[in-house]
Amino acid sequence: MLENRVKRIFDNISNKPDVILIKNAAMPFIDYNFFYVTGLTHGIFEGSFAVLFPDGKINLIVPKLEEETAKKSNADIFVYKDQSDLNEILKRSISSNDNIGLNFRGISIRGFLKIKNLFSDCDFIDVSDSIEKTRLIKDETEIKYIRKACKIADIVAERIPQIVSEGMYEYELAAEIEYLMQKNGADKSAFETISSFGKNSAEPHYTHGNFKLKKGDFVLCDYGACFKKYNSDITRTFIFGKPSNKQIEMYKVVLEAQTIGFNEIKSGAKASDVHNSVHSYIQSTKFKGRFIHSTGHSLGIAVHDSNGRFSSNSNIILKENMVFTDEPGIYIPGLGGVRIEDDVLVKKDGAEFLTKSTRDFIEI
Amino acid sequence: MLENRVKRIFDNISNKPDVILIKNAAMPFIDYNFFYVTGLTHGIFEGSFAVLFPDGKINLIVPKLEEETAKKSNADIFVYKDQSDLNEILKRSISSNDNIGLNFRGISIRGFLKIKNLFSDCDFIDVSDSIEKTRLIKDETEIKYIRKACKIADIVAERIPQIVSEGMYEYELAAEIEYLMQKNGADKSAFETISSFGKNSAEPHYTHGNFKLKKGDFVLCDYGACFKKYNSDITRTFIFGKPSNKQIEMYKVVLEAQTIGFNEIKSGAKASDVHNSVHSYIQSTKFKGRFIHSTGHSLGIAVHDSNGRFSSNSNIILKENMVFTDEPGIYIPGLGGVRIEDDVLVKKDGAEFLTKSTRDFIEI
Repeated sequence: MLENRVKRIFDNISNKPDVILIKNAAMPFIDYNFFYVTGLTHGIFEGSFAVLFPDGKINLIVPKLEEETAKKSNADIFVYKDQSDLNEILKRSISSNDNIGLNFRGISIRGFLKIKNLFSDCDFIDVSDSIEKTRLIKDETEIKYIRKACKIADIVAERIPQIVSEGMYEYELAAEIEYLMQKNGADKSAFETISSFGKNSAEPHYTHGNFKLKKGDFVLCDYGACFKKYNSDITRTFIFGKPSNKQIEMYKVVLEAQTIGFNEIKSGAKASDVHNSVHSYIQSTKFKGRFIHSTGHSLGIAVHDSNGRFSSNSNIILKENMVFTDEPGIYIPGLGGVRIEDDVLVKKDGAEFLTKSTRDFIEI
Repeated sequence: MLENRVKRIFDNISNKPDVILIKNAAMPFIDYNFFYVTGLTHGIFEGSFAVLFPDGKINLIVPKLEEETAKKSNADIFVYKDQSDLNEILKRSISSNDNIGLNFRGISIRGFLKIKNLFSDCDFIDVSDSIEKTRLIKDETEIKYIRKACKIADIVAERIPQIVSEGMYEYELAAEIEYLMQKNGADKSAFETISSFGKNSAEPHYTHGNFKLKKGDFVLCDYGACFKKYNSDITRTFIFGKPSNKQIEMYKVVLEAQTIGFNEIKSGAKASDVHNSVHSYIQSTKFKGRFIHSTGHSLGIAVHDSNGRFSSNSNIILKENMVFTDEPGIYIPGLGGVRIEDDVLVKKDGAEFLTKSTRDFIEI
């Protein structure tokens, strides 16, 4: 399985390097490709390297601190004590005249200059596009982990209406959501949970604060579970108390928009068309101009995975086993926002919602 | 306050640029300096830029999606719709013959090539060391936030003995710890909580899994709170049931080592001396060779902040208002590990523990 991932990366490169070097720096500059190729499902592995060979083999180079954890991988493991030790191991893994593939999106300028200094006669090839292309299409193990992460998000979605109560703070609801995810098997939250009430829900990237829930507020919850490094990402918007006509209308339009997006998703469709259909629909309603982000993003080890988006400038053609979010929203500053987000698996002739909890408008 | 941060960054650079450009890419490649200079305490701000001028002024350039959240900053805000819009705003902020300072540790090769393409006549200066040097010394606001994050960690530390019970899973304890932090005001966990039982505690970077607590196990909890982007980082090791003589001895040596480290910390001391004293002490005991990481790290917006470490190869001289962790440990594969970690503020003539919960060996 892991050999296949490495081979697929090489297959996707036209100007093939002799080796690919994946460098995992220090938090937050973590290169998820390190976990993708090694299959390691836990740990952070700061200062670790993976050297990938065209036959699918991997040399895993880790500091002493990570030795025990690294043993959970099938790769050949090399443990280094200090910088000179590390340099020597790298020099034994990579020939001085090799063409070296690097993830230009994942190595800092500083990190690159160090590598260049060590391999001064080597040429460097940007393989980031090929890696992204490879990672866009999920294999069986990846889909299994994402399904589990989605299942956890669904369990929590169905519990939220029972948890919410008048006067609750946004941060309390966020705490409850993350707690429930972890109790139900999430390793951690996929990202900082958004739990926004009332007019705060008009900020798509607001997280949570010191605001108390009151009647008539939207309750927008955007969260996800991380399971063995793979993520889900779901948004449910509820109404606390009786909705106004405008709130009902906002919700209906967003739900219809999400369905329009879903119906466009299938192998062979253009990612841009998915967004354009959703966007055009919202533009045709009274909420014109109120949908201010892309319709969705690829989902996997990264929450925003492989730079894949449902957006007007995307050139991605959908393929079987890609996973995207479908998440239109309408935001009205001063009033609030509605977003409905689900995770979708691209299939041959259509798509499957991986998150399956109800999308009905719920009055809490 | 924020103007001061920007001015201090410029002051710390010998080869001064005309402007500094901070680029915040997409998760996980988030440049914390973006939050440091803008003072924004929430949000992610993917695809956002901060242009810093020597007089302390900041141009904040954000996508439409972040407009509402950006308004919480005092900077001049520019909102862009698309890439060409962004390029135009950047060109208006930075002259074509400016020397541009960049954080070479925080921009990917790909990101750099884009900027270079846009400012082809400009020279680029690596200002990452200067930024790190600036960020090592915390200002009043930063210390206030770190104190709050430490306070939350302490509250939770004192609750752990009441939560732990026989047969509990590691992941359940992690969920409880994170829940308690959030209920007590943490915006989120500083990092994935480590909750390791028994022999798993011998892996310093193990997180948590499906293991059940049994009598005689060490319970190692390493966690921290994130409050307004600032972190705490604490480790407490408990024993479930009666400790063996060896376990007691391990704990005593680690506690003594931590105290030795703490006593070395004061303005003017060498960071390497702190580590060397701690390391030498452990080497002089029967646990020689069992302390396999550095004694601590700088703490702030990043959990491992500003590349500052208590390690033998650090060249940092401690200064007032630096914040470091003091966290020796002893790890015996097959048996388990003990780590005691506290956050320490460097003062003129000594140091202050910012985390204040008990370090006594507790039998649960």
